[in-house]
Amino acid sequence: MPATIAPPTADSIDALRAIGREFHARGWSLGTSSNYSVVAGRDPLELLVTASGKDKSALSRDDFVRVDSDGRVTDGSDRRSSAETLLHCTIAELVPGTGAILHTHSPWGTILSGADLPPGRPDGTLRIAGYEMLKGLEGIATHETHEDVPIFANTQDMRELSGRIRGRFAGLDFKAPGRPPLHGFLIARHGLYTWGRDLAEARRHVEIFEFLFECVARARTLPAAAAVQQQVQQQQ
Amino acid sequence: MPATIAPPTADSIDALRAIGREFHARGWSLGTSSNYSVVAGRDPLELLVTASGKDKSALSRDDFVRVDSDGRVTDGSDRRSSAETLLHCTIAELVPGTGAILHTHSPWGTILSGADLPPGRPDGTLRIAGYEMLKGLEGIATHETHEDVPIFANTQDMRELSGRIRGRFAGLDFKAPGRPPLHGFLIARHGLYTWGRDLAEARRHVEIFEFLFECVARARTLPAAAAVQQQVQQQQ
Amino acid sequence: MPATIAPPTADSIDALRAIGREFHARGWSLGTSSNYSVVAGRDPLELLVTASGKDKSALSRDDFVRVDSDGRVTDGSDRRSSAETLLHCTIAELVPGTGAILHTHSPWGTILSGADLPPGRPDGTLRIAGYEMLKGLEGIATHETHEDVPIFANTQDMRELSGRIRGRFAGLDFKAPGRPPLHGFLIARHGLYTWGRDLAEARRHVEIFEFLFECVARARTLPAAAAVQQQVQQQQ
Amino acid sequence: MPATIAPPTADSIDALRAIGREFHARGWSLGTSSNYSVVAGRDPLELLVTASGKDKSALSRDDFVRVDSDGRVTDGSDRRSSAETLLHCTIAELVPGTGAILHTHSPWGTILSGADLPPGRPDGTLRIAGYEMLKGLEGIATHETHEDVPIFANTQDMRELSGRIRGRFAGLDFKAPGRPPLHGFLIARHGLYTWGRDLAEARRHVEIFEFLFECVARARTLPAAAAVQQQVQQQQ
Repeated sequence: MPATIAPPTADSIDALRAIGREFHARGWSLGTSSNYSVVAGRDPLELLVTASGKDKSALSRDDFVRVDSDGRVTDGSDRRSSAETLLHCTIAELVPGTGAILHTHSPWGTILSGADLPPGRPDGTLRIAGYEMLKGLEGIATHETHEDVPIFANTQDMRELSGRIRGRFAGLDFKAPGRPPLHGFLIARHGLYTWGRDLAEARRHVEIFEFLFECVARARTLPAAAAVQQQVQQQQ
Repeated sequence: MPATIAPPTADSIDALRAIGREFHARGWSLGTSSNYSVVAGRDPLELLVTASGKDKSALSRDDFVRVDSDGRVTDGSDRRSSAETLLHCTIAELVPGTGAILHTHSPWGTILSGADLPPGRPDGTLRIAGYEMLKGLEGIATHETHEDVPIFANTQDMRELSGRIRGRFAGLDFKAPGRPPLHGFLIARHGLYTWGRDLAEARRHVEIFEFLFECVARARTLPAAAAVQQQVQQQQ
Repeated sequence: MPATIAPPTADSIDALRAIGREFHARGWSLGTSSNYSVVAGRDPLELLVTASGKDKSALSRDDFVRVDSDGRVTDGSDRRSSAETLLHCTIAELVPGTGAILHTHSPWGTILSGADLPPGRPDGTLRIAGYEMLKGLEGIATHETHEDVPIFANTQDMRELSGRIRGRFAGLDFKAPGRPPLHGFLIARHGLYTWGRDLAEARRHVEIFEFLFECVARARTLPAAAAVQQQVQQQQ
Repeated sequence: MPATIAPPTADSIDALRAIGREFHARGWSLGTSSNYSVVAGRDPLELLVTASGKDKSALSRDDFVRVDSDGRVTDGSDRRSSAETLLHCTIAELVPGTGAILHTHSPWGTILSGADLPPGRPDGTLRIAGYEMLKGLEGIATHETHEDVPIFANTQDMRELSGRIRGRFAGLDFKAPGRPPLHGFLIARHGLYTWGRDLAEARRHVEIFEFLFECVARARTLPAAAAVQQQVQQQQ
């Protein structure tokens, strides 16, 4: 991904506010859940991130905070940034070319991540394989592939979780030619983190992941073809 | 919860009307179901509550009634307050600091409350555990907790139900520091009651509970991970 | 039900057009499915009914036809009334006080009616019991009751189906004091017919039935409480 | 089907843009998925098709390309047509009278097509039988019928897939009197292709197929009537 950074102007803020309204309406950012950021500078790293505890359906222009690479507020305000700011910083640092990061809380992501991370394990994987819609993730050009979405056990300790993310990302090369090794991760019974070169790409990734989560989860509730045949015969 | 009481001005009425339109559109207040109130005074207790039998998608400014702590109309009008007014009064009395109370009828709340209250029992419990979204309930700061939502058997006798609620709330200390002991309850195959210091908080609690009900119910329809593996292998 | 008949003025037509837009958006009247009517006169019986084959999301003022008690066009136009007009006439004749009749095609109604009518049988019954939301059906004042919704096997022969409806309604007294013996019926794998004294009541009945169909169907997909316990234990 | 061809004027383009906004909102054309076309000429065959990789919720008037019967751009622009353009050309060639072709990616179509095509097979069939809503497909006049929707294994090789479509359509007579032999097909874990004499008919076919896919899939998740009885008895 070439480094295309969205400048954190009023335009960025209004675009994030529009995403809040949209994602609330689509059920992915209810209550005061979710947080969003855009990369405001790379040298040094600076992010514009949603302030803590705001209703995402009604973000005002003041509900954003600038933070440095360690999540400290740099704009002189007394607003607190989102509790999960450090994860945004970690992603922006580890994934080159990231221009925007979106974190959402959807029913399907919550349910699947809870179902697929065995209790007591620090992390697991949700494999999404064989769907045409995978091509909506940047750099994927065929359905004959899979996306292994990391699932991390939930915690309120962001330093600890950031460490686990660093550990898991350590073996990944986001600068290699071809598709990125991954496009997002889940926190179990909590939600999705995904990103993109700019806000439009990050928004598309949320939309694609949500579609795929719904398909994977609903497909599991369908009885196998053989069972359907048997059931139809029993009813007749 | 500090006692922040929303004054029952025209603003409150318009806010309740907006909630009616929103909750109808979201499928939580269909037909003439549901009723909403704000606390209009504390000494003596007075509530502003939706009038009986109104379509919640089209509440007019006249579709509200003032009642006293026993649910009697105090504004001299001949409008009848909602049949369940007494439950609003009971909650306002038992939960200190309550400024608004919302009662909704959603599919997931209806289904879960019916599934989890054993027949013949006067009340039961729906445990919601381990979800990040629990933090959307006032005072909850971690997912490593649970909310035990009381389920009461349905009845048309509001005095009797009010008595059961008083009995169940008797051992609870809503004034203790930290999180409230609970944020709402279900009536089986009927709906949800939740509340907040003000209307915005009560509305958020409805939204959060609905999300959690959907997650809990849908998660039950997913086969266990082991069964999924087996099914996938049989299909291949 | 007292005989309150909505006059088939331009107001009625615009109200039916609004219902078409709403029901299309809610997924109950897709394609050119569904048809709606209001009673325009009682002596002799006359109905205003949607013309055949129209997209319900975009009804124009010309997409309505007046018909007599046998479904014949009486307004001198060459418009064809809906193929199912005769069922509207039959209902208007059999259920005294009916002012409006709405026929919709929803997923839940389609699925439940198909699941519950045994193959080869001319009719069956869907019992809906114990839900508070039953009170949204006119005259029902308690959840401690049930609505037995007739299910008729589908046919393209409206005279034959009308005959079966007459046969099933023959033993019912819609003039007895108290609640009506029923508020609607299903045609298997086809859709719902319901009615009301006026269009608002008929619209509410559609909304209430759809809510109840969704609850009944989704409740069946939840494993029994015992199975849930077992599954949770196996996963741990 | 008589040859009614929608002229590819600005009106056609705006109609396709409206469909993009609608289908995105209904969850059938997320991300940059889906593509749409209208037949612009028959002698020689010319199509107006959506350009490659566009967000369907925000199509501009420049996001369309004219192509010939082999999918080559004929309007002198440097815009690339959709990667699946050749399938649109194949359908327009094989199905006489086609005026518009719509390709969508919905959850239910994705799941059902994946469930019903056995692994390793080049194609299969989804049978939809007995539903009244089948009458929404052009030329079908009774529910006592079935639509056998072909399912093709997915590929990124459009020439190869076009060949399989030609093979399967070889035995079908779209010019025979009566209903067409089929109205659309599925690509497994990918999406739906359907068409019509004009854009309105093609749009209706998408809507009808989506309704039917939802009914077929949800009906499979309902336990058989006997199992429901047993479960209810065990709970009591």
